[in-house]
Amino acid sequence: IQSKLPEVGTTIFTVMSALANEHGAINLSQGFPDYPCDAGLLDALNRAAQAGYNQYAPMAGLPALRAAIAAKLALQHGISVDAETEITVTAGATQALFTAIATVLHAGDEAILLDPSYDSYAPSILAQGAKPVHIALSAPDFAVDWALVEAAVTPHTRLILINNPNNPSTSVFSSADLDALAAIAERHDLLVLADEVYEHLVFDGQQHHSVLAHPALRARSFATYSFGKTFHATGWKIGYCVAPAALTSEFRKIHQFLVFAVNSPAQHAIAAHLAEPAHWQGLSAFFQRKRDLLAPGLQAAGFTLLPSAGTYFQLADYSAIRDDLDDVAFARWLCIEHGVASIPVSVFYRQAPAQKLVRFCFAKQEQTLQAASERLQVLH
Amino acid sequence: IQSKLPEVGTTIFTVMSALANEHGAINLSQGFPDYPCDAGLLDALNRAAQAGYNQYAPMAGLPALRAAIAAKLALQHGISVDAETEITVTAGATQALFTAIATVLHAGDEAILLDPSYDSYAPSILAQGAKPVHIALSAPDFAVDWALVEAAVTPHTRLILINNPNNPSTSVFSSADLDALAAIAERHDLLVLADEVYEHLVFDGQQHHSVLAHPALRARSFATYSFGKTFHATGWKIGYCVAPAALTSEFRKIHQFLVFAVNSPAQHAIAAHLAEPAHWQGLSAFFQRKRDLLAPGLQAAGFTLLPSAGTYFQLADYSAIRDDLDDVAFARWLCIEHGVASIPVSVFYRQAPAQKLVRFCFAKQEQTLQAASERLQVLH
Ligand SMILES: CSCCC(=O)C(=O)O
Ligand SMILES: CSCCC(=O)C(=O)O
Repeated sequence: IQSKLPEVGTTIFTVMSALANEHGAINLSQGFPDYPCDAGLLDALNRAAQAGYNQYAPMAGLPALRAAIAAKLALQHGISVDAETEITVTAGATQALFTAIATVLHAGDEAILLDPSYDSYAPSILAQGAKPVHIALSAPDFAVDWALVEAAVTPHTRLILINNPNNPSTSVFSSADLDALAAIAERHDLLVLADEVYEHLVFDGQQHHSVLAHPALRARSFATYSFGKTFHATGWKIGYCVAPAALTSEFRKIHQFLVFAVNSPAQHAIAAHLAEPAHWQGLSAFFQRKRDLLAPGLQAAGFTLLPSAGTYFQLADYSAIRDDLDDVAFARWLCIEHGVASIPVSVFYRQAPAQKLVRFCFAKQEQTLQAASERLQVLH
Repeated sequence: IQSKLPEVGTTIFTVMSALANEHGAINLSQGFPDYPCDAGLLDALNRAAQAGYNQYAPMAGLPALRAAIAAKLALQHGISVDAETEITVTAGATQALFTAIATVLHAGDEAILLDPSYDSYAPSILAQGAKPVHIALSAPDFAVDWALVEAAVTPHTRLILINNPNNPSTSVFSSADLDALAAIAERHDLLVLADEVYEHLVFDGQQHHSVLAHPALRARSFATYSFGKTFHATGWKIGYCVAPAALTSEFRKIHQFLVFAVNSPAQHAIAAHLAEPAHWQGLSAFFQRKRDLLAPGLQAAGFTLLPSAGTYFQLADYSAIRDDLDDVAFARWLCIEHGVASIPVSVFYRQAPAQKLVRFCFAKQEQTLQAASERLQVLH
């Protein structure tokens, strides 16, 4: 068998979570909560299953869930999205991303990525026989030079991927960034794939600017979302994709043969839960508290922290602790010797700049964050 | 946007189920049960969610579920399958099929299909930029001329797809069929993708011969399965793929970026349910009774029935009722005018032979099957 992805190994998230389990480390690597999700959500799941919603959901998603998503978008952005033709429910944001990429890219096409980029993007592009074109952004601010992005456009370019807020850099685009992106996309007739799974996790009073609220981008974007992130249930694997009807229609052609439909009882439960805005508003405050709980312990241990503007991650420069190690070696060392698992940031780059950064996930109970801090205090 | 699947519309299952709803028809089209699944399975789902299994499952599937699958395969076929390296849990069999196809086929490759074939196969191949090569089998016996299959092999052929038992023809391969397939695959170094989602639904004392129990095929096959079919919960979207370690390793490279992992609480529930062999043994008798309940009503209405050897479908020749209509027109007419929805068989072909067949699903409650029979009696 000729490998479709010859250079791909096991994802860093699987590797680090396994290493954490093996060494009894506190797992601040893979991004998932260690606290329970809302009891009401679990009750809604049981109610749906007991009520008999255990057969195929409609291919595009449960109508009640799509209606609830449209209502949320109206409340959130003041926009009108057609639940019938513009929203598709997916098996998590990962499936939404893969499907959008498979919808747009043919063999030989190119897609532009801004590194650090989530680890599924490049392989999903390569799996289409297409070419990822990487533009590396650097710490501490990971600012985008949009002229450099435009210079990377070729006649083969079809798509620009963005992740806003960005995992792992945590940076959040300004509306000027979106304007610059829109201008490039329009000038070269490109589509945009906007991974906005951390839309609700933006700190210090900043605003998240969605492509959905930007008319020029709205017209040419697939935007992907994750109920796993928003409802603290990453294992449910329910997400969705919003795109104009013409793009959604092509997206669904792939979706219907890739997975056909998505878990029914979970869709019913989420539809009920989403209808209450309090369930998705106020998440920034919830996570900002966790961010601010972890930060002093990391600083006291000798890490230099980068600003965490969004997502549930904190980047930390470890060069004052072990300048001799690259980030993969440092993350392994920290996990094995000091019992705290993190993610090396270089894995999110095709060619990483000279940075000594690891990523900590703070979507954890207070006592987990405190215990991790305590373990790290021997470092300073 | 240049369509990846220009000729694809909405699947016939969505179309016919929608038409059935619109006209208040009894829905014997899309294959799913209208009776509740086991209460124990639903309780297990609730227990798993309440116990807190709501975060990412491991990428390859919950270890307990993979172990339960390996135990089932040992009991069922007397074979040893390594849960660690040879089993991957997927978001239903559809995702397993798409992923196996994406794993094997590069742009320009060819894959051989035996029509009638399930409607996801050809588009999944086309989505890779590869070419489906269709071989049409005809009613009433849909026998395979393996010399014809071998004649279709070219230097570009990588894969042969089979569906055994076959939806919609209901035919079940003999062990001589598997031997012939194996010989071709070995002579031309081809891989096999065996969709065995109806493995437990084989009637009249016949045997299902799995590629997993055929050493030569086991060594070069991806085999896909569906808990939705087996546990009467098509909406849960949990299936799995079995393949040798070298193939599984490539399969997982795609899987991990296509969906990453699969619904956690459902995996926990199924792991518990699968451990009891009574939950998957005896399904043939259960469905054979339903088959034999629907058949007389169809015959009395004027249909000529083809043998239903496996799956939960019944093929019926309607030429004695409306010889003037093609099968798509007949299925619409039957749904709109007589309130019973079926599936036209020609949609499973690239070029259908001159047949006048529709497919009825009998995975329904006795009263549903009876009510459908009654509605059809005006036809004769
Ligand atoms: C799909 S596992 C990775 C979870 C995640 O989004 C992250 O840790 O970045
Ligand atoms: C994925 S919907 C179709 C269900 C099915 O397997 C069938 O009706 O053939």
